[in-house]
Amino acid sequence: MAMRIITLTTDFGTKDWFVGTMKGVILGIHPEALVVDITHDVSHGDIRGGAFALAASYPFFPRGTIHLAVVDPGVGGSRSALVVQTADYLFVGPDNGVLSWALRQEKIKAIRKLENEKFFLRSISQTFHGRDVFSPVAAHLGKGVAVEKFGPAQKQLVTLLWPKPRRTRREVAGEVLYIDRFGNAITNIRSEFLDGFDRASCRVFLRHKAVAPLKQFYGEVPAGQVACVTSSSGFLEIAVNGGSAAEKLKLNVGDAVEVRRALHQKSSSP
Amino acid sequence: MAMRIITLTTDFGTKDWFVGTMKGVILGIHPEALVVDITHDVSHGDIRGGAFALAASYPFFPRGTIHLAVVDPGVGGSRSALVVQTADYLFVGPDNGVLSWALRQEKIKAIRKLENEKFFLRSISQTFHGRDVFSPVAAHLGKGVAVEKFGPAQKQLVTLLWPKPRRTRREVAGEVLYIDRFGNAITNIRSEFLDGFDRASCRVFLRHKAVAPLKQFYGEVPAGQVACVTSSSGFLEIAVNGGSAAEKLKLNVGDAVEVRRALHQKSSSP
Amino acid sequence: MAMRIITLTTDFGTKDWFVGTMKGVILGIHPEALVVDITHDVSHGDIRGGAFALAASYPFFPRGTIHLAVVDPGVGGSRSALVVQTADYLFVGPDNGVLSWALRQEKIKAIRKLENEKFFLRSISQTFHGRDVFSPVAAHLGKGVAVEKFGPAQKQLVTLLWPKPRRTRREVAGEVLYIDRFGNAITNIRSEFLDGFDRASCRVFLRHKAVAPLKQFYGEVPAGQVACVTSSSGFLEIAVNGGSAAEKLKLNVGDAVEVRRALHQKSSSP
Repeated sequence: MAMRIITLTTDFGTKDWFVGTMKGVILGIHPEALVVDITHDVSHGDIRGGAFALAASYPFFPRGTIHLAVVDPGVGGSRSALVVQTADYLFVGPDNGVLSWALRQEKIKAIRKLENEKFFLRSISQTFHGRDVFSPVAAHLGKGVAVEKFGPAQKQLVTLLWPKPRRTRREVAGEVLYIDRFGNAITNIRSEFLDGFDRASCRVFLRHKAVAPLKQFYGEVPAGQVACVTSSSGFLEIAVNGGSAAEKLKLNVGDAVEVRRALHQKSSSP
Repeated sequence: MAMRIITLTTDFGTKDWFVGTMKGVILGIHPEALVVDITHDVSHGDIRGGAFALAASYPFFPRGTIHLAVVDPGVGGSRSALVVQTADYLFVGPDNGVLSWALRQEKIKAIRKLENEKFFLRSISQTFHGRDVFSPVAAHLGKGVAVEKFGPAQKQLVTLLWPKPRRTRREVAGEVLYIDRFGNAITNIRSEFLDGFDRASCRVFLRHKAVAPLKQFYGEVPAGQVACVTSSSGFLEIAVNGGSAAEKLKLNVGDAVEVRRALHQKSSSP
Repeated sequence: MAMRIITLTTDFGTKDWFVGTMKGVILGIHPEALVVDITHDVSHGDIRGGAFALAASYPFFPRGTIHLAVVDPGVGGSRSALVVQTADYLFVGPDNGVLSWALRQEKIKAIRKLENEKFFLRSISQTFHGRDVFSPVAAHLGKGVAVEKFGPAQKQLVTLLWPKPRRTRREVAGEVLYIDRFGNAITNIRSEFLDGFDRASCRVFLRHKAVAPLKQFYGEVPAGQVACVTSSSGFLEIAVNGGSAAEKLKLNVGDAVEVRRALHQKSSSP
C-alpha cells in the first residue's frame, strides 16, 4: 500500500541545503510523497531532544505516516540504521535511541536493519546518511516496498532511558526533559500522575524553593509570573506568562522538579 | 466547495514540533490540504507583528485560501475563537486582533464563533489551541464545511488600532510598524500618501533629524547608506543598502517618522 | 510539458512573510506546483553563499525541476533577470552569479532574459522581484510555457569566479568556501583531487599549522577533536566531532587550507 506522508525530525538546521536535498531525493523516488517538517532545529547531536520532539508529535499524524528522524552523531560509524513497523506507523532512523521514546508508546511489529543498498542512493557519503540512506528508504517505504525487503530482522533497539518520576504520599519528583522555544520547561511528570492530589494546594519546587502554583493556563497568573500548567504534550510544564521560564528561573534539561501538596506549608509559597 | 490551501501565521517557532503537529492534524482530517507557512517566527505573543505579517501576505494567495493565524497569548482564557468569511477568503484565529489588519482591507460576509466541539480534536489542551481547535477547524473548512456549522454569529471583532499617518501641507507624519529580517523599518505611510509631493526634494526625519532621501530602490544609494523606498508591502520603508537600518539608526517599532518636503531647507539634509 | 517541482534558494529569511507570498503567487498561477525550500537563510546579500547552496543541492532533484534562486542585492537596478535551460533543469534568478556555480556543472541549452511582463505580477515593486517577477515566471515555466516566450536570448551570464585548488607534488592548496550550520568548513578541494596521495599520512594545514588528519567520518576522532572528512557535497571539510570547527579554529570563508602529504614531517602533526 502506498503512503504519502513522510515526516522529518532532524538536527540539520535550515541554514544550509541539507533538508532540501533530502526532499529532492524523496521526490525523485516517490513523486506523490508529501514531506512534512516536524523540526530541523534539534540541537546539534542532541538525541534526547530529537527523541522527545518525535514522541510529542508523531501520534498527531494519520495512520500510515512514515516518520523519519535523523539526529545522528555516529553517522559513518558502526551504529546500525533501522526501519521499525508499528501498528499504525513506520519509523526510520539510526539505531541510537532517537526513535525510542516514540516507540515506547507503540506496539512494535517488526524491526529491520537497513542493509539492502538497492534502496540507498548509488553513492553514499560517510557524513550524510539522512540524504543517502534514510531519505531513499523512506521514499521506497512510501511507495509500498515491504519492510522485509530492506534488510535482516533485528530483535532489540538502542533505548534511551526514560526517567520515571517518583511519587510519595507528599510529592511527585521528576525532572526537566525539554525546554521549548518559549522557554517553557517541560517535565517528565504526566498530568495524570497528580490524580488524587488537591491541585489548588500544590506547589512546584525547584532547588528546594517553591516557584509556582499549578494552573490550567498561562493567563491565570499575571504577566511575568511563573505558573505550572499541563503542556500540550500532556506533561507538567513550568512557564512564565508572556515570558521565558528557562531564563527567569535559569532552568536546564535535567533539573530536578518536585510537586508538593501543601500540608502545613507556611512561608515558602510563591 | 473544497479548498486546498491553508496558510499558517504563528509565533510557535520552528525549533519544536508545534507546527508539525498542526500539519499532522490538518492532513488527518483533510488529506488533500496544502499547508503553506507564512511565518512561525512572529515574536512571542506579538499580536501586532502577526497582524502585520498576515495583512501583508494574504492577498497574494488565490481566492478560497484559508488563512490561519495564531498568535495567542490569551490561550485557555476567555478570548473567543473565530472564523471570518470575506468575499475572497476564510480567516481563522483567536479574537484578539491578529486577524484585524487583514480584515480592514476585506469585505466581511460572516463572523462565527468557534464553539462546535465536533470540529475540534477530541482532547483539548489549555495551552495549544493552534493544534487542538484552529487546525482542525481550518481542515474542516477546507473540506467544505459551511461557516455556520462552527458556532453562533458574532457581530464585532477585537480590532487593533491602525495608526493613521497625519498629513499637512509640509509633511506626512507616521511611525514604524514593523522591522523585517533585513532590519528594514516598514512604516504606516502608504506610498500614495505622498502623491503631490515632489519626491526628489523630500527628506525622511527621525527624532527631528533628516536621515534619508526618498529613492526607488536600495542600490540608488551607496552601500551602507540610508534610503527610504517603497517597500514591497506598499508602505514607505527605511532601509540601508546592504545593511540594517534598524541597527544603524537604532530603530524600534513605534518610532515617529516624518516625510518633509524641503521648502527652504538648508542644513539638515543628509 | 508541465513540471511540478519548484525549489527556492533565497536570503529572505523565514521571520517575515516574504517566502510565503512567493508561494501564494506560484500557487495562484500553477495550482499543481510543489514548492520545496532549499534554504532561505543565505546571509543577507551573500551571492556566493547562495550559489554554493544551489550548486550543492540542485542535482538531487528529479529532471525537470525548476530551480529558483534569489539573492539579489541589486534588485530594482540594472542587473538583468534570467531563465536558463540546461539538459535536465530550468534555473531562474537574477543575472548576478547566483546561478553560476550550479551552471558550471550543467550543459546550458538556452539563456533568456526575463522581459515579457505578461508573465510578471501586474504591479511590480522595486524591492521584491522574488515575488513579483521570479515567482510568477517559475510558475508559468512549471505550467509548460517555453523559455523563448519570456524574453530575448542572452549569450553570456555573470559568473562568479570558482577558486580552483592548486596541486603540487607535495600538497594541494585550496580555501574555505562555505561554513555550514554545524560550523563545518567546506573547502573547494574535491576529494578526488587527492587521488594518488597516501591519505593516512596527509595533514591539513591552516595558517601554516597542521590542524587535522584526513578521516572517513566524524566519529573517527574523539569528541571535540578536529578531523578533515569528505563532506556530503564531495569537497573536503574541516570538522570537529560533536562541535564547531569554525568556532574552535576561528575559520572564515576564504581562509587558505593546505593538504600536505607527510614526507619527513616530525613536530607539527596534531
